[in-house]
Amino acid sequence: MMSVVTDQAFVTLATNDVYCRGALVLCQSLRHHKTTRRIVALFTPQVSRNMRSVLECLFDEVIEVNVLDSGDSAHLALLTRPELGVTFTKIHCWCLVQYSKCVFMDADTLVCNNIDDLFEREELSAAPDPGWPDCFNTGVFVYRPSIDTYNQLLQFAADNGSFDGGDQGLLNSFFSSWSTKDIHKHLPFVYNLSGIAIYSYLPAFKQFGSSVKVVHFLGPTKPWHHKYDAQTKSVVQENMSPSDSMFIDFLNLWWDVFTTSILPLLVEHGVVEKSADHQMHQAGDLQVTMKRQEEAVAQEKANMVLEQKAHPQSAERREKLFLGTPLQ
Amino acid sequence: MMSVVTDQAFVTLATNDVYCRGALVLCQSLRHHKTTRRIVALFTPQVSRNMRSVLECLFDEVIEVNVLDSGDSAHLALLTRPELGVTFTKIHCWCLVQYSKCVFMDADTLVCNNIDDLFEREELSAAPDPGWPDCFNTGVFVYRPSIDTYNQLLQFAADNGSFDGGDQGLLNSFFSSWSTKDIHKHLPFVYNLSGIAIYSYLPAFKQFGSSVKVVHFLGPTKPWHHKYDAQTKSVVQENMSPSDSMFIDFLNLWWDVFTTSILPLLVEHGVVEKSADHQMHQAGDLQVTMKRQEEAVAQEKANMVLEQKAHPQSAERREKLFLGTPLQ
Repeated sequence: MMSVVTDQAFVTLATNDVYCRGALVLCQSLRHHKTTRRIVALFTPQVSRNMRSVLECLFDEVIEVNVLDSGDSAHLALLTRPELGVTFTKIHCWCLVQYSKCVFMDADTLVCNNIDDLFEREELSAAPDPGWPDCFNTGVFVYRPSIDTYNQLLQFAADNGSFDGGDQGLLNSFFSSWSTKDIHKHLPFVYNLSGIAIYSYLPAFKQFGSSVKVVHFLGPTKPWHHKYDAQTKSVVQENMSPSDSMFIDFLNLWWDVFTTSILPLLVEHGVVEKSADHQMHQAGDLQVTMKRQEEAVAQEKANMVLEQKAHPQSAERREKLFLGTPLQ
Repeated sequence: MMSVVTDQAFVTLATNDVYCRGALVLCQSLRHHKTTRRIVALFTPQVSRNMRSVLECLFDEVIEVNVLDSGDSAHLALLTRPELGVTFTKIHCWCLVQYSKCVFMDADTLVCNNIDDLFEREELSAAPDPGWPDCFNTGVFVYRPSIDTYNQLLQFAADNGSFDGGDQGLLNSFFSSWSTKDIHKHLPFVYNLSGIAIYSYLPAFKQFGSSVKVVHFLGPTKPWHHKYDAQTKSVVQENMSPSDSMFIDFLNLWWDVFTTSILPLLVEHGVVEKSADHQMHQAGDLQVTMKRQEEAVAQEKANMVLEQKAHPQSAERREKLFLGTPLQ
């Protein structure tokens, strides 16, 4: 019998309807691996009404956050550094003081094993970033909600900005002792394994990858950008390099959760139209592709522009590292 | 007044005449930054007689190592795993028991600041590998010479092999607690900064790269593969992408040491012929390029085949990551 720990939670953030799909798959993967913690979604006003009702179906708690309306402290800080808006959205997670400890996870992560042991770690615990391994990657991190910390983060951001324009630069500067002080705050890399690692050191992936806990779909091509063949239960490998095939298992896992558990909910709540927006239920049809709604596509484009502003070099970097993975 | 510590040493390894050039530049860079430790070169029988005499000019100690003639223990272990020969060559460094502590450095590293503080660290201290950051990179590591450890390493290699076919896989399996046990054994990444990091997370390089201690020319294109313009004192940027320019400063630094301190020695000892093999002394000539000796080129090719056997995926990986850097 599982005992539910109600004062600890996994937290994710969705800034538009497209990322909500990732958040929903993440949530379902946590449940599939029998987490005993609560699961919380933060979402921004861009998320559609219908999608919000889907989030409410799956998450224990669903909270709208608005960068420009997040209280006096944020407002004051933002007045001088409006470009840090994207960064600040993630920082909102420190406001969830109804929980004593949380694990933040990006909406493009997928849980492959129970990871409740992460709650034994202290703030700020995270896995190394493969790009500059003395920095931690902010796709998965353990933290303690605290309004005090939240305000300090805002003030720090207003004073110092972020060296990469995003939350990762900000949080690494704020929690600057991560690389030198306490080995227990270094999560094993398998708790935030990015596809980059497969390309950059395949023998290590073959040696250690079997114990993967969380896969992080870092890069411009997200699982929802791929095409999926419902009959073979496999992502359609168009223009993929041989190295990409190592990553296919993870993509297929994501799509399996999506088609099995999430797509029916999206149809039910009218986010995806049954006949027009996907072809899943057409017998004999090979591909399950999601026809993107114009609105969602526009949102995603706007988001990518923001991301590129925040990470002027990241997009190019990731294009390089994910050579074989086509951006649709 | 510097006090020389005679029982501690920097150690490098050169497996052919081409890598000797790297080893010599490394040695000179250590001296330039006023190390108080001794500097040792291990070299294999492939190194030419003339080149050995150059090594002897610059290093405090020059020791020939022969994988197939390295004593009973190595011989016994090797009988069952001949493919591990390349790996074993580096392991020889544990035999330098005339020293109490050493820092091993690959011949394709360059020291940019005094790093004698590394001797305050314990075995096995190393910086994270950017490819799989729970592994350490074996381009720079602190260790304690010990015949006992040497024999254990040989036995371990014979029993388990190496997960990447090279010394990095072997040493990471042997010193397997590195990622979880003692943060002091994590050298800051700036003690073994590879070019890959510039491509993969440029903002972090801009933020932290100014404190670089050691640059590691990881990848298929080594500094000695580039062309150098002696008038502008700069590497000739053929087919380089804009991102490569971030790395040029380090290449220029390498070439500056090479042309100033090493090339004259190579000429003096007949390794490079004054007029035929390079054009440095031809007034008005723009390029200082090194005409490679047939023998050296053949050796290097053989070496690359060995490297590719040891790291079947590394070559492809590095080609990908070093997109803009031409392999001559």
